Amino acid sequence: MFTFELQRTQGAARAGVLTLPHGKVETPAFMPVGTHAVVRGLSANDVRRTGAQIILGNTYHLHLRPGEDVIREMGGLHRFTTWDRPMLTDSGGFQVFSLQGLRRISEHGVEFQSHIDGTSRMLTPERAMEIQWKLAADVAMAFDHVVPGQSSPEAACEGMERTLRWLDRCKERHAELQRGSGAAGQTLWPILQGGIHQELRMRSLEGTLERGPWTGIAIGGLSVGEPKPVMHRILEHLEPELPREIPRYLMGVGFPADLLEGIARGVDLFDCVAATRNGRHGTAWLPGGRVNVKSAALKGSVEPLDPGCDCETCTTYPRGYLRHLFVVEDILGLRLVSIHNIRFLVRLGEQARTHILAGTFDGWSQSWLSRHYAGGSRET
Amino acid sequence: MFTFELQRTQGAARAGVLTLPHGKVETPAFMPVGTHAVVRGLSANDVRRTGAQIILGNTYHLHLRPGEDVIREMGGLHRFTTWDRPMLTDSGGFQVFSLQGLRRISEHGVEFQSHIDGTSRMLTPERAMEIQWKLAADVAMAFDHVVPGQSSPEAACEGMERTLRWLDRCKERHAELQRGSGAAGQTLWPILQGGIHQELRMRSLEGTLERGPWTGIAIGGLSVGEPKPVMHRILEHLEPELPREIPRYLMGVGFPADLLEGIARGVDLFDCVAATRNGRHGTAWLPGGRVNVKSAALKGSVEPLDPGCDCETCTTYPRGYLRHLFVVEDILGLRLVSIHNIRFLVRLGEQARTHILAGTFDGWSQSWLSRHYAGGSRET
Repeated sequence: MFTFELQRTQGAARAGVLTLPHGKVETPAFMPVGTHAVVRGLSANDVRRTGAQIILGNTYHLHLRPGEDVIREMGGLHRFTTWDRPMLTDSGGFQVFSLQGLRRISEHGVEFQSHIDGTSRMLTPERAMEIQWKLAADVAMAFDHVVPGQSSPEAACEGMERTLRWLDRCKERHAELQRGSGAAGQTLWPILQGGIHQELRMRSLEGTLERGPWTGIAIGGLSVGEPKPVMHRILEHLEPELPREIPRYLMGVGFPADLLEGIARGVDLFDCVAATRNGRHGTAWLPGGRVNVKSAALKGSVEPLDPGCDCETCTTYPRGYLRHLFVVEDILGLRLVSIHNIRFLVRLGEQARTHILAGTFDGWSQSWLSRHYAGGSRET
Repeated sequence: MFTFELQRTQGAARAGVLTLPHGKVETPAFMPVGTHAVVRGLSANDVRRTGAQIILGNTYHLHLRPGEDVIREMGGLHRFTTWDRPMLTDSGGFQVFSLQGLRRISEHGVEFQSHIDGTSRMLTPERAMEIQWKLAADVAMAFDHVVPGQSSPEAACEGMERTLRWLDRCKERHAELQRGSGAAGQTLWPILQGGIHQELRMRSLEGTLERGPWTGIAIGGLSVGEPKPVMHRILEHLEPELPREIPRYLMGVGFPADLLEGIARGVDLFDCVAATRNGRHGTAWLPGGRVNVKSAALKGSVEPLDPGCDCETCTTYPRGYLRHLFVVEDILGLRLVSIHNIRFLVRLGEQARTHILAGTFDGWSQSWLSRHYAGGSRET
């Protein structure tokens, strides 16, 4: 359980299989985000049909609504959502640090005001473990101190060092919870911090590995405002030092190009809300670009949104109908474009994996990215 | 084609099979409403899984967006929506007469202002036929003059007589369109008017039958503000005089009890937006009552919404999760309750049919209605 089999590498790119209590995850893989225990607008069956192997839940949001005790009494996140495949919960660290002006940070933890009802709440490393234990996903994430993307070395260092101290507390509490239950249904993954400062990133990695062993490792605090080349540089610097035998998860990333750029730099797992957020706004990703589904150019078109795509939306509906759904503001439109965008990222992971296993990743990836960037789709 | 086989009757209640170009419809049957070429919030597959055999489209709304020419160029409503079973379009009469203050009625037709962009438009019997011909549903409805539910005999008489004169024009134009195409892919059904006045209703029926023969007949202008017992009286009065050999469609009806009350009075087909409208507001129909899915009483409940229901929602999701979806305002909630409500009506039609075929309709229906009314679910 919680094992990772590295099947083949090509340069830094890796193909592997992660085994979790609720199933296997073939990597590289994109993980759709189910913030409120639902991938926005989609049923569990919709998500299954995209080929997604693992989805995320969010500790901060689920703590507020409906509360971890409600979910535990209903049998955990899997029973609650009817999603029966692997699941990961993030720790709430990213959310509470985003609550500018509504949170107070101390060594003990983060006191914050609920964005729902204004009540005062406290998240600590221990509480984050307890909540995630009750949510009962396959993978729990450590409670980390996230700093903005352009933070000074001093601020980034403070966050990184606190994340390490909090990691000790997370590890201890998680181990207690496991001993108390006698079950090993959940593993804990640490999160690297250190902002955009290579030396801090290396110290974060060293400190984290000293506290191991771990069954997976996450890279946090990237894609939070820094330029993409800076993120790529950090990944390139870290990669040779990351353990080969466990999966690497780049948190909150990404857009289509980010997946290929990340995979080329040794990342195995990704998550991002952009697929569903863009879907709700009618932006569909296509190879070599993207399209606004509301565009008048689609009116009356019987073509699929993306003729090369095998998703439910593209294999079923003419894009003229998708446009019509956005024009008349029917929620089916949001759902169908979200399904396409998720499938687009899931499939990109599958294609990357196929090419890594065949030893053809570099050429394919470079050609894919050239076409994508030429289409004006660089997300910065 | 367009035949109706009457299989068994019990009192006025009828079980039959209607054959249309896109398939058979076993009656009695509820027809979900797809106003904008989409059953609000649901995919064609969602609707298929409710067991619905036939759905509606709306001439007024589809004329405005995307326009009948766009739909024709895309291959008609079936290709546009991917709904491959029977479909019926209403004529737009009900909608344009509802545009109080925005429409001018003359013998020629109804001039109205688009509620979308304020442009001036004209619907006439001929235009209603031409638009519906382009939409290409299996059944087109005549363009009728609808009056409010409590209209005076004079106003109701005017609307009823105009509806008959317009029926001549609809019939002529529809026949021209059929001759022009050489195809018989669409039939035309007339609509009875006459308000709540029995004598006018009988004159409407006589005038309509004189203009026949027809492959189906609709009862319009009911459930538009008059008390339910008044509607029931009109139906009882009409029923013995209605042709036995064609299906009878009670337009814009109904709520669950309305289906059984209508079936007992000889109605074969129903349509109503209440199933999806209630679903969007979180009201789910249950045998013997209804429930507000947002209610705190459902928090944490692992029970299905309706343990006796076989819909996708009830067989998959705990109702505590449905409540959560409404609390966090995820559109999946609207969809899942709409699916349940539609299945509830479709299944009620199926159950009524089974009981009519078995000769047990009266007892079953009375017992179902007693329980339903006792649960406080009378819709008036």
